[in-house]
Amino acid sequence: MVVTKINRPSDALLAGFDGLGVATVHEAQGRKGLLASNMRPIYRPIHMAGSAVTCEVAPGDNWMIHVAVEQCQAGDVLIVAPTSECEGGYFGDLLATSLVARGVKGLVIDAGVRDVAVITEMGFPVWSKAVFAEGTVKETLGNVNTPIVCAGAEIHPGDVIVGDDDGVVVVSRAEAESVLAACRAREANEEEKRQRLASGELGLDMYSMRERLKAKGLKYVDSLDSN
Amino acid sequence: MVVTKINRPSDALLAGFDGLGVATVHEAQGRKGLLASNMRPIYRPIHMAGSAVTCEVAPGDNWMIHVAVEQCQAGDVLIVAPTSECEGGYFGDLLATSLVARGVKGLVIDAGVRDVAVITEMGFPVWSKAVFAEGTVKETLGNVNTPIVCAGAEIHPGDVIVGDDDGVVVVSRAEAESVLAACRAREANEEEKRQRLASGELGLDMYSMRERLKAKGLKYVDSLDSN
Amino acid sequence: MVVTKINRPSDALLAGFDGLGVATVHEAQGRKGLLASNMRPIYRPIHMAGSAVTCEVAPGDNWMIHVAVEQCQAGDVLIVAPTSECEGGYFGDLLATSLVARGVKGLVIDAGVRDVAVITEMGFPVWSKAVFAEGTVKETLGNVNTPIVCAGAEIHPGDVIVGDDDGVVVVSRAEAESVLAACRAREANEEEKRQRLASGELGLDMYSMRERLKAKGLKYVDSLDSN
Amino acid sequence: MVVTKINRPSDALLAGFDGLGVATVHEAQGRKGLLASNMRPIYRPIHMAGSAVTCEVAPGDNWMIHVAVEQCQAGDVLIVAPTSECEGGYFGDLLATSLVARGVKGLVIDAGVRDVAVITEMGFPVWSKAVFAEGTVKETLGNVNTPIVCAGAEIHPGDVIVGDDDGVVVVSRAEAESVLAACRAREANEEEKRQRLASGELGLDMYSMRERLKAKGLKYVDSLDSN
Amino acid sequence: MVVTKINRPSDALLAGFDGLGVATVHEAQGRKGLLASNMRPIYRPIHMAGSAVTCEVAPGDNWMIHVAVEQCQAGDVLIVAPTSECEGGYFGDLLATSLVARGVKGLVIDAGVRDVAVITEMGFPVWSKAVFAEGTVKETLGNVNTPIVCAGAEIHPGDVIVGDDDGVVVVSRAEAESVLAACRAREANEEEKRQRLASGELGLDMYSMRERLKAKGLKYVDSLDSN
Amino acid sequence: MVVTKINRPSDALLAGFDGLGVATVHEAQGRKGLLASNMRPIYRPIHMAGSAVTCEVAPGDNWMIHVAVEQCQAGDVLIVAPTSECEGGYFGDLLATSLVARGVKGLVIDAGVRDVAVITEMGFPVWSKAVFAEGTVKETLGNVNTPIVCAGAEIHPGDVIVGDDDGVVVVSRAEAESVLAACRAREANEEEKRQRLASGELGLDMYSMRERLKAKGLKYVDSLDSN
Repeated sequence: MVVTKINRPSDALLAGFDGLGVATVHEAQGRKGLLASNMRPIYRPIHMAGSAVTCEVAPGDNWMIHVAVEQCQAGDVLIVAPTSECEGGYFGDLLATSLVARGVKGLVIDAGVRDVAVITEMGFPVWSKAVFAEGTVKETLGNVNTPIVCAGAEIHPGDVIVGDDDGVVVVSRAEAESVLAACRAREANEEEKRQRLASGELGLDMYSMRERLKAKGLKYVDSLDSN
Repeated sequence: MVVTKINRPSDALLAGFDGLGVATVHEAQGRKGLLASNMRPIYRPIHMAGSAVTCEVAPGDNWMIHVAVEQCQAGDVLIVAPTSECEGGYFGDLLATSLVARGVKGLVIDAGVRDVAVITEMGFPVWSKAVFAEGTVKETLGNVNTPIVCAGAEIHPGDVIVGDDDGVVVVSRAEAESVLAACRAREANEEEKRQRLASGELGLDMYSMRERLKAKGLKYVDSLDSN
Repeated sequence: MVVTKINRPSDALLAGFDGLGVATVHEAQGRKGLLASNMRPIYRPIHMAGSAVTCEVAPGDNWMIHVAVEQCQAGDVLIVAPTSECEGGYFGDLLATSLVARGVKGLVIDAGVRDVAVITEMGFPVWSKAVFAEGTVKETLGNVNTPIVCAGAEIHPGDVIVGDDDGVVVVSRAEAESVLAACRAREANEEEKRQRLASGELGLDMYSMRERLKAKGLKYVDSLDSN
Repeated sequence: MVVTKINRPSDALLAGFDGLGVATVHEAQGRKGLLASNMRPIYRPIHMAGSAVTCEVAPGDNWMIHVAVEQCQAGDVLIVAPTSECEGGYFGDLLATSLVARGVKGLVIDAGVRDVAVITEMGFPVWSKAVFAEGTVKETLGNVNTPIVCAGAEIHPGDVIVGDDDGVVVVSRAEAESVLAACRAREANEEEKRQRLASGELGLDMYSMRERLKAKGLKYVDSLDSN
Repeated sequence: MVVTKINRPSDALLAGFDGLGVATVHEAQGRKGLLASNMRPIYRPIHMAGSAVTCEVAPGDNWMIHVAVEQCQAGDVLIVAPTSECEGGYFGDLLATSLVARGVKGLVIDAGVRDVAVITEMGFPVWSKAVFAEGTVKETLGNVNTPIVCAGAEIHPGDVIVGDDDGVVVVSRAEAESVLAACRAREANEEEKRQRLASGELGLDMYSMRERLKAKGLKYVDSLDSN
Repeated sequence: MVVTKINRPSDALLAGFDGLGVATVHEAQGRKGLLASNMRPIYRPIHMAGSAVTCEVAPGDNWMIHVAVEQCQAGDVLIVAPTSECEGGYFGDLLATSLVARGVKGLVIDAGVRDVAVITEMGFPVWSKAVFAEGTVKETLGNVNTPIVCAGAEIHPGDVIVGDDDGVVVVSRAEAESVLAACRAREANEEEKRQRLASGELGLDMYSMRERLKAKGLKYVDSLDSN
């Protein structure tokens, strides 16, 4: 099944996520939404923020990605998840060319990709769990723009996807506005902390940790023998 | 056992594979010949094409690699596979120096390598399943230039080996000429497709997929609720 | 427990390890001391030598890293090991900033790190088993400067830690002086070998292997059929 | 957050899933709902069907499991997923005793369990990704009876969970009735097939595959040489 | 392509391998032929010896297994390898029933199987790399009775396959007779050793290792301090 | 090097650990000492307690195990760790026979074992990270009864080793007496808890968790909508 009409976040909202770090977004929304740590970028440094178009594929079969391309528009990120564990090379430079032509911001795929030298030259952002040239077939139908689980995270069409060198995080469309505000607050706060730490202030003091550590029973000894 | 006389593809044939992508070769020969996806290059971008010299080694023992070096000549690629799973550092910058001196094009090893900073500076292409400094011994004999299974692929001495950022593929010597022709046809064909996709044409139309998708039962709906 | 007074190698001794390769150190001390091969650097090329400050943490809890920072001084390397397998993002750019402010040479962590784009820009050396943005908590006490097992290697506070593109190796403080001498001898020796190999001499001859190979029964045949 | 009122499938509906195989349920609902293949039972043979109570925990922290126990009632299955990859031993024989006392049918946990000898003797069904004795702490809050992703599958409280030697599958509560009907149809159908196959009839004939194979181009040759 | 006429070892030869251990066969043929260690039996104890029928399948597609069944006869072992890494559930109790009806001795598959509770009850020997219920499709052709690489080992139709609790080993048909003789010699020899060891004799003495250990430099010390 | 005189715990002390669970010992000594979770028993149920004899081996080389056997006496457990990652089959039924003849309690090996069907019949306890028939050589020296790191845990000769279905734990000889006392206290305590939980009392009440959960901010809601 292909769902053709999905709600997307506004361009202004998406633009707000440009340049935000994955760790920042993850923390700002209460430590949730991360895709599994094996979703690695094919080049570094890398950054992407966009609106999810989801695509569920059969193992070793990339037919539905061709179907999904048509559903993508400028500002989207294509999210691909196979129904069964697979590291085949679902995606190469031709599909990347097609997505770039449509203004798509990047690809996140819980499987393999190929032609990574060319895609790296193109500067098209891709996160995958494998780089592998194994070809795929075009035999089995799947779904486009239905809710899916990709790399352990639930993703709905129109969710905000942010990716960087650390990996990928999803923000539900309903919460995107408030999460963006929380990200900005966090970033401002971190900049101040960064300067204090750079000047030599300790986190123990800056975060007022000493008392709680002591209450928990932390002991300081000169040496193990003096224990 | 060391086999000293092997048949190699002609220089002209090998030259034809220069610059060809692993995915292209894999597809052109009917989707076969890929080594496992954990064979990763130590730097990127990377490319290599050459004629296989095979080397079977004991786990944690790189003695036979020294034996194999003597069997290598300009245009060869050294293929090393341990008889049992091992990620020890069989190969470092001294062996790389020796292979470069003989005109060898690269190394593919289903084990570990070390000194990768130096080998990267040298620009000597290496694919391995691990980077690990663990030393090896020189105690146990193995084979040079016998047929071996390396990273799940069967490789005969004199087979054509192509490696790039996507991994490594083997082409049997007997089929190398026809595979090369198929690669060239495929490349020409892909260039044309690339231009059409870049201009916005959809794969769905370019590959005439719509009818077959419909026949398989693909349905388009406005939304999940309207389903 | 936090041990506040530890013995460190002298600055001169540490300086001696600057620029030495991990493989060289590993070989020079009799092929021991390597951390597991999944401890990978977050950027390349990379190098670090310093004195170990150890930090044992609970899974998903980076509280003790903040405690450990205060115990670090110029020339130290922070070694972090969780008590149970964990790939959470214990360490980010703020902690890196704090360590840089104290003159720390690098971080080795048998877990995950985040903000790797920023830490890469900072040029702060980090080896970890994962890059993952998952946040950690600050609830559970651990130990600083007690002996720990990190990535399969036993590390005592004040041990010498060397890291490069190949991984990480530990040298016990007691043996550091003699290991350094052995490293230098090895390096000199290797430079001479490198030149001989580069000029085309074979390892078989340079290492006088032919006789022992023959004694072990190595056979040369023209072809498999002639066997 | 703990959600105290959830909708469960009827006892009659749950009873219908008793004894049904995971593969049957997976196929009957259109090949979806499987948890990842690393969710293995602690003993065999094993079977379980029940209604999901979900529990999200912090890495290395089993506090919320104690909270979840109170929300469990007879016929439930407890589903536990950590917010970050962890294989600590969250669950042992005391918690198993508590769940048995409440009539709970089993446990599915995307982490580790311990005391498996005792739990095996008790005959309490458990699927986990690790058996590991590592202790956990009780410091961090999580959620009970919110939708979660466990081992790659989305699970809502009140969904039907079926587990057997093959693994675990989830059926959404809304679809449970129709899936059960489809399972029964499938089972009846399979029994007839089993008898025909046991009597020597070929799947090629029983499923009328020969024509389609021929149309796809399948060729029969006497030998590779005769090809 | 399906090759219909293959050479098989004689029934008498196959019978000779009945009950032989995988380790014995592996050693007797010079430490080769083992399939990868992730090929595990679905139940224990287990044993099988038979003649290989090979089957190459597409990832997530078990169509060719149905084709292969027809090529199997009494005494055969079905060997299945996907062209790309896949752990889908290619094989269940219906296919097992069909193979049993034809007198097939067992299945070795570098992928997943399902219905393992039933197949265990049937006592049909299966080695696989995963137990997983994920369904497969029937869309893509492959090969039957061509040479394949399965779990890292090259297997030709008609090779002898032996499996037990330790895993699976292949013996080439051409060498099967001499390997069988070597196995018998080895077994007789081991029985005598077993009795000597059981009576308390040390391997150091029985294998006359002491002198060679001393020559290599083995030192005995009372304690580390006395070193 | 082989250390011939090591201090062992008394027979009475070792006897005290008979039947104690690994989880109990791990908790009683402050949540430390566990070997990695991939150290799995070759059969279940299983239990072992004994005094460590350590053996460091080269990858793929079991020579030193033969040396270590002579150093073993009744009540010992043999601990084997390769200097580099290896899953070869270092240990089979002949070595098991030899250890049984000396009264050894079991084997813990961070590598592979073979002949597991026979060793299972013998009832000789073994924990390993792989079952694999791959043969090993006898070429390289190692150490017996020196401190080693095995599966991530530091083990000294004469330490107490306990293994069961959950895995393996090490107790330092110096702490063995106090840890044993703590184990007994823990066991008595757990028995009482088990009965209270079996009678339906909740852990929330038995452990007085409700107040602290509330203080941390745990909220109960009727449903997600009522949140």
